[in-house]
Amino acid sequence: MWITERLHVQSKGDDDVLDLTGNVQDAVSRHRLRHGQALVFVPGSTAGVTTMEFEPGLRHDVPAAFRRLIPREASYRHEETWHDGNGHSHVRASLLGPSVTVPVEDGKLVLGTWQQVVLIDFDVRPREREVVVQLSGEKQ
Amino acid sequence: MWITERLHVQSKGDDDVLDLTGNVQDAVSRHRLRHGQALVFVPGSTAGVTTMEFEPGLRHDVPAAFRRLIPREASYRHEETWHDGNGHSHVRASLLGPSVTVPVEDGKLVLGTWQQVVLIDFDVRPREREVVVQLSGEKQ
Amino acid sequence: MWITERLHVQSKGDDDVLDLTGNVQDAVSRHRLRHGQALVFVPGSTAGVTTMEFEPGLRHDVPAAFRRLIPREASYRHEETWHDGNGHSHVRASLLGPSVTVPVEDGKLVLGTWQQVVLIDFDVRPREREVVVQLSGEKQ
Repeated sequence: MWITERLHVQSKGDDDVLDLTGNVQDAVSRHRLRHGQALVFVPGSTAGVTTMEFEPGLRHDVPAAFRRLIPREASYRHEETWHDGNGHSHVRASLLGPSVTVPVEDGKLVLGTWQQVVLIDFDVRPREREVVVQLSGEKQ
Repeated sequence: MWITERLHVQSKGDDDVLDLTGNVQDAVSRHRLRHGQALVFVPGSTAGVTTMEFEPGLRHDVPAAFRRLIPREASYRHEETWHDGNGHSHVRASLLGPSVTVPVEDGKLVLGTWQQVVLIDFDVRPREREVVVQLSGEKQ
Repeated sequence: MWITERLHVQSKGDDDVLDLTGNVQDAVSRHRLRHGQALVFVPGSTAGVTTMEFEPGLRHDVPAAFRRLIPREASYRHEETWHDGNGHSHVRASLLGPSVTVPVEDGKLVLGTWQQVVLIDFDVRPREREVVVQLSGEKQ
């Protein structure tokens, strides 16, 4: 089976971290995927996807690391052409990457107990984000 | 269907960014993949694959960030054994990662309008790079 | 075919780098996967998976870069709640990502000659790590 769905989530921008785990597991359950994979992919070039423990401390710490490594106030040539103030957003997103693939077994995402699938929206304004969830494998 | 192809691209090295999107979409179209995935994977340990907006500003900004985060002139133990001057290339490549998986729907890569699949060649000399494009899914 | 296996590996923690390539190739060979993919995914939020040349110099250099970019001694809000001394481990793991997908052709992982699949354990203590290896594709 190959199933491709869209999630629509609302971000606040500025490195907002959104937990997608429930939505992805819901897609797995609704389509009765028993054994296979869930690819979570964000179209666009100013957001990324990874996994982390989704708790208030790390929801601060992970974005804070990106802000330190790729500062907003540094100079970006992207700005010289586009003047949209999000050069750092693009660079952070390329560093993190747009997707993660999670194994599915017995109808469940195989994740650690304290591991969630998250979107980080590096853009500088609130955005409605469309996230692609693609399921492949064997049905129940 | 499972199809594995090779792209051959010429890089200038030193963080050259190459847009692979047209080549990958071409493989999807030639093999008439309707619904599935394209895995883009670079064999080797001094280049990486990600997505970004492929425009002149960011073609400078993304490599510049890697140069700042993992400086060429820092000291690398890799050099002590190999003396090939590319310790930083290896570290940058491991940080970025060797691959990206892009969903395919209705015969098209699902990417944002300003999102391209790129290879970044961190090695210190021009190289011909072989990139693996692996298609899986359902034919038209 | 869809096969999901677990590897059990022992890490020393503190950015220990473990070469998983032999174990993953062994799973490919035992299950006679001819053409397809191996997804290598680590459950948990304090370790990551990537590829690198597994040689003593880079086994030092790659972790050293993470220590410089995401210092252990920086302040992490994760610590304020959990006091387990591994805030930096979580941030490093999210930056690196939990998985890599390697193409398989003719029963072999398609990797560069000097490219291995590695786990980096960023946690602050020795751990037995369970790693998921998921094979998909066509049998021999």
